[in-house]
Amino acid sequence: MKKPWAGRFTEKTSKSVEDFTESISFDKKLWKYDIEGSIAHAKMLSKQGIISKRDSGRIVRGLKDIWTEIEEGRFRFREELEDIHMNIEAALIKKVGDAGGMLHTARSRNDQVALDLRLYVRASVEEIIGLLRRLETVLADLADGTLGIVMPGYTHTQRAQPVLLAHHVMAYAQMFRRDRMRFGDALKRINVLPLGSCALAGTGLPIDRQYVASLLKFDSVSDNSMDSVSDRDFALEFLSCAAVLMMHVSRMAEEMVLWSSEEFGFVEIADAFATGSSIMPQKKNPDVAELMRGKTGRVYGNLMSLLTVMKGLPMTYNRDMQEDKEPLFDTADTLRAVLSILPEMLKNMTFDAARLRQSSDAAFSTATDIAEYLVNKGLPFRTAHEITGKIVRFCLDNGKQLHDLDLESYRLFSPKIEKDVFDVISSSASVNAKKSYGGTSPTAVKAQIKRFRNSLK
Amino acid sequence: MKKPWAGRFTEKTSKSVEDFTESISFDKKLWKYDIEGSIAHAKMLSKQGIISKRDSGRIVRGLKDIWTEIEEGRFRFREELEDIHMNIEAALIKKVGDAGGMLHTARSRNDQVALDLRLYVRASVEEIIGLLRRLETVLADLADGTLGIVMPGYTHTQRAQPVLLAHHVMAYAQMFRRDRMRFGDALKRINVLPLGSCALAGTGLPIDRQYVASLLKFDSVSDNSMDSVSDRDFALEFLSCAAVLMMHVSRMAEEMVLWSSEEFGFVEIADAFATGSSIMPQKKNPDVAELMRGKTGRVYGNLMSLLTVMKGLPMTYNRDMQEDKEPLFDTADTLRAVLSILPEMLKNMTFDAARLRQSSDAAFSTATDIAEYLVNKGLPFRTAHEITGKIVRFCLDNGKQLHDLDLESYRLFSPKIEKDVFDVISSSASVNAKKSYGGTSPTAVKAQIKRFRNSLK
Amino acid sequence: MKKPWAGRFTEKTSKSVEDFTESISFDKKLWKYDIEGSIAHAKMLSKQGIISKRDSGRIVRGLKDIWTEIEEGRFRFREELEDIHMNIEAALIKKVGDAGGMLHTARSRNDQVALDLRLYVRASVEEIIGLLRRLETVLADLADGTLGIVMPGYTHTQRAQPVLLAHHVMAYAQMFRRDRMRFGDALKRINVLPLGSCALAGTGLPIDRQYVASLLKFDSVSDNSMDSVSDRDFALEFLSCAAVLMMHVSRMAEEMVLWSSEEFGFVEIADAFATGSSIMPQKKNPDVAELMRGKTGRVYGNLMSLLTVMKGLPMTYNRDMQEDKEPLFDTADTLRAVLSILPEMLKNMTFDAARLRQSSDAAFSTATDIAEYLVNKGLPFRTAHEITGKIVRFCLDNGKQLHDLDLESYRLFSPKIEKDVFDVISSSASVNAKKSYGGTSPTAVKAQIKRFRNSLK
Amino acid sequence: MKKPWAGRFTEKTSKSVEDFTESISFDKKLWKYDIEGSIAHAKMLSKQGIISKRDSGRIVRGLKDIWTEIEEGRFRFREELEDIHMNIEAALIKKVGDAGGMLHTARSRNDQVALDLRLYVRASVEEIIGLLRRLETVLADLADGTLGIVMPGYTHTQRAQPVLLAHHVMAYAQMFRRDRMRFGDALKRINVLPLGSCALAGTGLPIDRQYVASLLKFDSVSDNSMDSVSDRDFALEFLSCAAVLMMHVSRMAEEMVLWSSEEFGFVEIADAFATGSSIMPQKKNPDVAELMRGKTGRVYGNLMSLLTVMKGLPMTYNRDMQEDKEPLFDTADTLRAVLSILPEMLKNMTFDAARLRQSSDAAFSTATDIAEYLVNKGLPFRTAHEITGKIVRFCLDNGKQLHDLDLESYRLFSPKIEKDVFDVISSSASVNAKKSYGGTSPTAVKAQIKRFRNSLK
Repeated sequence: MKKPWAGRFTEKTSKSVEDFTESISFDKKLWKYDIEGSIAHAKMLSKQGIISKRDSGRIVRGLKDIWTEIEEGRFRFREELEDIHMNIEAALIKKVGDAGGMLHTARSRNDQVALDLRLYVRASVEEIIGLLRRLETVLADLADGTLGIVMPGYTHTQRAQPVLLAHHVMAYAQMFRRDRMRFGDALKRINVLPLGSCALAGTGLPIDRQYVASLLKFDSVSDNSMDSVSDRDFALEFLSCAAVLMMHVSRMAEEMVLWSSEEFGFVEIADAFATGSSIMPQKKNPDVAELMRGKTGRVYGNLMSLLTVMKGLPMTYNRDMQEDKEPLFDTADTLRAVLSILPEMLKNMTFDAARLRQSSDAAFSTATDIAEYLVNKGLPFRTAHEITGKIVRFCLDNGKQLHDLDLESYRLFSPKIEKDVFDVISSSASVNAKKSYGGTSPTAVKAQIKRFRNSLK
Repeated sequence: MKKPWAGRFTEKTSKSVEDFTESISFDKKLWKYDIEGSIAHAKMLSKQGIISKRDSGRIVRGLKDIWTEIEEGRFRFREELEDIHMNIEAALIKKVGDAGGMLHTARSRNDQVALDLRLYVRASVEEIIGLLRRLETVLADLADGTLGIVMPGYTHTQRAQPVLLAHHVMAYAQMFRRDRMRFGDALKRINVLPLGSCALAGTGLPIDRQYVASLLKFDSVSDNSMDSVSDRDFALEFLSCAAVLMMHVSRMAEEMVLWSSEEFGFVEIADAFATGSSIMPQKKNPDVAELMRGKTGRVYGNLMSLLTVMKGLPMTYNRDMQEDKEPLFDTADTLRAVLSILPEMLKNMTFDAARLRQSSDAAFSTATDIAEYLVNKGLPFRTAHEITGKIVRFCLDNGKQLHDLDLESYRLFSPKIEKDVFDVISSSASVNAKKSYGGTSPTAVKAQIKRFRNSLK
Repeated sequence: MKKPWAGRFTEKTSKSVEDFTESISFDKKLWKYDIEGSIAHAKMLSKQGIISKRDSGRIVRGLKDIWTEIEEGRFRFREELEDIHMNIEAALIKKVGDAGGMLHTARSRNDQVALDLRLYVRASVEEIIGLLRRLETVLADLADGTLGIVMPGYTHTQRAQPVLLAHHVMAYAQMFRRDRMRFGDALKRINVLPLGSCALAGTGLPIDRQYVASLLKFDSVSDNSMDSVSDRDFALEFLSCAAVLMMHVSRMAEEMVLWSSEEFGFVEIADAFATGSSIMPQKKNPDVAELMRGKTGRVYGNLMSLLTVMKGLPMTYNRDMQEDKEPLFDTADTLRAVLSILPEMLKNMTFDAARLRQSSDAAFSTATDIAEYLVNKGLPFRTAHEITGKIVRFCLDNGKQLHDLDLESYRLFSPKIEKDVFDVISSSASVNAKKSYGGTSPTAVKAQIKRFRNSLK
Repeated sequence: MKKPWAGRFTEKTSKSVEDFTESISFDKKLWKYDIEGSIAHAKMLSKQGIISKRDSGRIVRGLKDIWTEIEEGRFRFREELEDIHMNIEAALIKKVGDAGGMLHTARSRNDQVALDLRLYVRASVEEIIGLLRRLETVLADLADGTLGIVMPGYTHTQRAQPVLLAHHVMAYAQMFRRDRMRFGDALKRINVLPLGSCALAGTGLPIDRQYVASLLKFDSVSDNSMDSVSDRDFALEFLSCAAVLMMHVSRMAEEMVLWSSEEFGFVEIADAFATGSSIMPQKKNPDVAELMRGKTGRVYGNLMSLLTVMKGLPMTYNRDMQEDKEPLFDTADTLRAVLSILPEMLKNMTFDAARLRQSSDAAFSTATDIAEYLVNKGLPFRTAHEITGKIVRFCLDNGKQLHDLDLESYRLFSPKIEKDVFDVISSSASVNAKKSYGGTSPTAVKAQIKRFRNSLK
């Protein structure tokens, strides 16, 4: 197979080099975008009179045939043709003859691959945004449906204060909302047409880049041809958004794992979303959650990978940049899988409301409420805090809970304490009181859910 | 020194633990933000009648005194007080007595540190945006002033096609513009008030978070108290933007290093921005550029550091998150230093226009123009490319440049070639021809600079 | 202050460049190693007749004075002298005059900094190896002292099979042993003398590198002067070992956090190793363990940082490499702190043996033993596994534990089950049975501890 | 398809979960190791009387049949069977009936996958060590064959001092030697048998782990069953070694790219190891070197990926760890490809000796030799350095090289300079003088090559 650059060369490429440098084994994933881009390019070339309408027609028909062949699995990708661009072009030339050779006019693989990649990332981001929106909806619904459940809120994996399960759930909804916003902002920088930058310098041919942009639904046209073929910050921004998203996923997954342990026992994951053990018959393992948590590593690694590739590369295109694709593909696939399964898993979890409440009643999680109670009675916060600490110490030393003490006992710690202290030491009372904006009282959480749903529209 | 939580504990903290867990050695950097936040909090507490106007007044005056003491270096930070919040609060109580203890009402260190950090990151981002704007201006000016200089454009560190130096410079301007946009978008998620989330659940006290937000110039108030004290995605977004920016810096630095080598000889960095060797008297080293390139590692590492810290943490605040500060501080400091020096260095570089032109004339960098010339004469691009490849091969084998061949020699390769071929093989002609939008012709570059400057306004 | 390279330069270094390029603010940490190296160098120079004995004597005395001044805090480090090497040399020249200027003979800052860094890393590794050995001893002692405690062994954070707490503890001992071995192997590549490589090419002066190596206790002398001044793989190997070690620490810390939660309740961390909350009086937080887990991020980040710095640097020394120090220093400091505190914390934890046993009796953790029992009765493992799975399902559906069923009930699932089944369903029986090499029976664990202690000698 | 754990479950696994959790699509790569391990396990089981000789014989024959089927591409891997272990076991049971079910006796997928992975990593390391040895040999041969070529040695990408090309080449040989040593040390921790640890606790069956180790050629048997199934530090050590190796590769690749630029022009890469441009006919791009440099990102990313996966995982096996395989496979494949091509490429490069010498004569690269000359005449080094700096400054200002000055001119800078100065200012003289151990003189480099070759034996 003669290489497209064969003219200048006297020796043939070695086979091991061909294997080392080929990208068709993974960049074939770009076929749809490559064909779409070529069709738009061909239409522009004929509109501008650079090639004939007839040639353009042939090219477009040829490309559509190739589309069908690939879709139906009838297309043979050939490694010796290096990449997706050459594979499709070679097939086109075979199909429509010389006209096919016209397609590469005013175009280089440098701007072509930048185009394909932007189309790929754009489509991925749009899909991910859709999946995030669905996940947020499911979380808001879950919150709405569990407003009655009180649970312990944790800091340091220690019970801290009672909260609504719905509030906890909404915390994740807020995170994923920000993730969605980030991807949305990234789109502004992704959705820019690089085609027409050619190898690096632009062209002398009278191309119309705005026309191509409108055919391919790009918001704008890149402003500098060298920048267009050599930068990949749009890809890095995508990977960064993905890494932060996976950080959030890993936190939620961690909690699913903990909550489905025998020790916590807060939730049961549906059988369909768990797996068993080949040796221990009693096991029901939260494998899906664990794998999600594990896949964080993959996405962090992909980000680090491309950051490393791009570090210190001089202008403009360098072959190192061929290494941009696999981290992107792997990340998009991972996000797609995780975000598809997560809502289904959430919808198939059963919370143990009794155990959640019981846990939030125990472990002095309303101690802060006693402290606030004392503040309301006029003590400075630090003093109130210290008195409450002594009450807790007393309970710990005597194996008691806060509701086991009688008024007399309480008053040994502070004469400010009166009968109404018993109104603040139940977890329900504690939760109901937290009416501040963004707080955990049912009223505040309902308002939060309402605002959230409005923002989803 | 009694700990704020001493009530419940029976043993004292060990000294080595105190050393291990203290953060005052680095979080004292947040002092301004901590005081600002406390002042706003105190004002709100008294406005809402939670504390008296008198106490609020005392607190504010006390805090302002502390501000002055720190500014003048008279404040003694104490490690046994753990962190900046306790250091300032202890000093306040010492100064104003019981009123100081009131300040912690309806607040926890969890939302306080989240507030301080957001104020710090916001200020850093605003400063970085300003520095980027300045850098972009300098680059646009540099481009404007070098419109007459032609140089080789590179792919694969091989001369590819002639370009304008101004075009090359503008490629970087475009990158930094996108970096600035990214930081701007990040601000939307940074500039959200977390205070009022308290430990994690909100509060029963009648606080007014919107009022605090307006005092501290936040765009909005966080919607979920658990999310507010436990997430750090705003910090990760900042670090991601920084990593991408440093990737761009590393590329520019790499080119400065290459261009100031004897081999390239394109540029001379001013003595003030270079250093010498302790052993080799002739050396003039581009140390500043090298260090900028090297500092990419630090910023990538900081991103990876915080991503790792946050991975798999359950809700809400965990002490691991104390590790969020140093990567942020170090990154902000690095960006500030790099972005301050870069424009000065750029303004003090001397380009060797003759050498740049000479390099762009050699090495067949207008071969593509011959290929385009043949396309214009009606050949398909692939054929034109192959013919040109053979011309280059012939020149290489015979030690000639493109302008050394006469018409007859050219016509041996294709009868389509005519006298006007000599109009396309000079680098000036090549550059002038690239009139496409975003291309490298002087017209296109002038238009680009104009658009760019408009976007800077 | 005149720079050491001032001869060739016409302009002065700008102040901002001085600030940007200085390293004295952090490399002063190398002062001991710098002086040690210089003393050895001076002795060699005079031994070889390159400088006079008298000059050498003056230099050595001068350096020793400087040592004392620094130790006593009387030395003023000056930023305009860039780095530790110039600071000490300038002080030396001031002290002993021209003789001081002789010290830089046959030496460059390139090999000098490589020397200092190797001495620093060597000392750090030796200290870390000592700390690891102590940690391993404490773990082995802890295991020895807890041989009677049975607990649930986990997979997927689900109870799997009963194990000895001692076995669990020894698992960590094994990990830290491998970490220690790794650092030991790294020493082979760290402990190589680079001095005498000069700037990059070696020297024409008749130096004796073997002599310097013996003075500084290096195992060998580097073989290639260019390699010696430009590579930092010894530093990367140190950081890699550190990253793997911190991975282990993070796992142990995670378990400490989980085990000290109310839900697990397996362990109580001593008050001296925990902290409380400024707002929630009842809290006792495992902050030290959390911080250790969090510090994993820092060490991973440092590794990534230096890997990035070194990527793609051409030979030999480049200023980028100044960025090698802070990640090394920070990592060594972190390891030192973590490894110092960890053994103390372990010695001050109280295990709740009753709760551990109770947890290991519940949750069907001996189900595998029933399956093995059935295998012993002649069933294929897969069949035995399935029968046991059905028994567990039956118990779950009827709210029973394995020891709640009578023989009749068991025989409904398989007629192979006989009275002796009750000998295998207690967690003690389960543990005692696991006599395989490396298994969890008391006999096997005692043997393991014995082997382990032997390897520590 | 019934899952191996179906007994306890009431719902079927959802299809999307099956897709999400399957690993057969990549862990089928382990088939050889899985079968090898199973054969050894079956032999041991029958030797110990745990299963009959007959059953063992059937199992071994069945497994060998499966080996042949896979080798010949006749085996159908099924996703619903999750992983390689279940795929092979299911095929075995189909082939040999109940006997197949015996194979899982005293084994779990936890220790089985740890075994497979260790066998895979061991084989990869052994192959990589072989490839490194070959690369080192090629480099030593290349050095040996280029002893006559002088070139500029660089610091800061600025010409510093003349060196032998052979010395430069040997610098890389030294790096790769250390890489090989590192992989060799890692083998000590890789080559340990985990099988017999079962799920996590060991077993009550009378297995003989030492026997299995001897069959599979392991140096030792793991000491702690929990550690054996849950740690992956051996994998991380492999990835760390790989990252450092790729750092070295990236540096060499960077130099190949630079040296084959028009500006340097030091080397021509053979056509077979370069590629052209689809649009620029004159281009000959060092794509192979660029891709090698780029693949550094992938390997760094893989390391970061697994470090992240393992961070903070509690004991013992967690499903997250399924994510350990792809980074390992990808890294091993990358190293194999890079190390196979590199020696071939090196053997097919043509150095331009004339240009190398010419470059080393220019640019004052022997200035240090003048300084050393002045030291020999009795000046302190710092003074000598300054005088030489002034000579260079004078030459720069007057457009001269060092050999353009006459003695009189030299003596204007120092009366110590005499006629013999002209013996030190040629690059050959400079190189020849550097006779110190590890220096760049031909004598020293020959000795270095000799030592190096001895160490390769």
